[in-house]
Amino acid sequence: MTRIIGIDPGSRHTGYGIIDAQRGRAQLLVAGRISTAAGEMPQRLLQISRELAALIAEYQPEEAAVEQVFVNKNVQSALVLGQARGVAICALAAADLSVAEYTPSSVKQALTGSGRADKLQVQQMVKILLKLQDPLAVDASDALAIALTHAQSRSTVAAVNLASLGVGKRRRSGLRWSRA
Amino acid sequence: MTRIIGIDPGSRHTGYGIIDAQRGRAQLLVAGRISTAAGEMPQRLLQISRELAALIAEYQPEEAAVEQVFVNKNVQSALVLGQARGVAICALAAADLSVAEYTPSSVKQALTGSGRADKLQVQQMVKILLKLQDPLAVDASDALAIALTHAQSRSTVAAVNLASLGVGKRRRSGLRWSRA
Repeated sequence: MTRIIGIDPGSRHTGYGIIDAQRGRAQLLVAGRISTAAGEMPQRLLQISRELAALIAEYQPEEAAVEQVFVNKNVQSALVLGQARGVAICALAAADLSVAEYTPSSVKQALTGSGRADKLQVQQMVKILLKLQDPLAVDASDALAIALTHAQSRSTVAAVNLASLGVGKRRRSGLRWSRA
Repeated sequence: MTRIIGIDPGSRHTGYGIIDAQRGRAQLLVAGRISTAAGEMPQRLLQISRELAALIAEYQPEEAAVEQVFVNKNVQSALVLGQARGVAICALAAADLSVAEYTPSSVKQALTGSGRADKLQVQQMVKILLKLQDPLAVDASDALAIALTHAQSRSTVAAVNLASLGVGKRRRSGLRWSRA
């Protein structure tokens, strides 16, 4: 079993989700978001850093994953997103966690079997895979989708022993997941 | 007297400079750069965070200043710069330092008297104001320029008691500095 934390960083809301994963099965431990809409920027960054550190200390994840961002907005919003993302990744590295990165399309591919699935389908699959009854906040769901992608990626690698081919580059089907 | 740390964050090199400033005079304590050109991104961010924390612990600055960035490159480099900048600002906030931001033109204005001075003139003024003999690395010099701008700004505010007008918005002449 491997405990994985997924992070979806943002300047206003940073989603997080921690799962226990083993051979195509995954269980939710905790998910939510750190909201930093108010206050000055240095304090908001510090809040992301401290709350992630506290989460990591409490749940002791063994591996971490974040979404690889391809920003298509303006440079100023890329800078602002980068600041939050840097602080989040630094908090993971400070806890000695390796940080895997997955493109949005590889997350969609891993969860639904299609790299062009829409957000709603991905959210639905997160609920199904983790057997959740209640709806999740979007940021929390996105973070869990990244954690599930990492779980599937490392499980594939372990099973097929193809690590040398490069994790995250191959196409994978979401159907590998046990849904029962 | 006030001890000020200036930071010039970058994904490859983060410049820093710490000065003691008092009534238009300033003295260099330490300046240099944290080079993070090698290694994976999470480890590079962690290095910036840890080296800045160590510097702050050693020199105990009371105030901090960074340059306000207006990126004119592509969004991807803005994201990468933002990551380093976020980590640096978070390290300052974690040490309970208030973080002032200055535009590149206000730094030029503060040091040379002209908001359109070139980089070489600014570097020259850093050397003169701090009575340095040896040349400085560019990143270190840029960080000191930001620290000196903050020193001048707060000194002006203290002298004229015009804090309510908004620091950093008024024009200031670099000639206020005592050069002797």
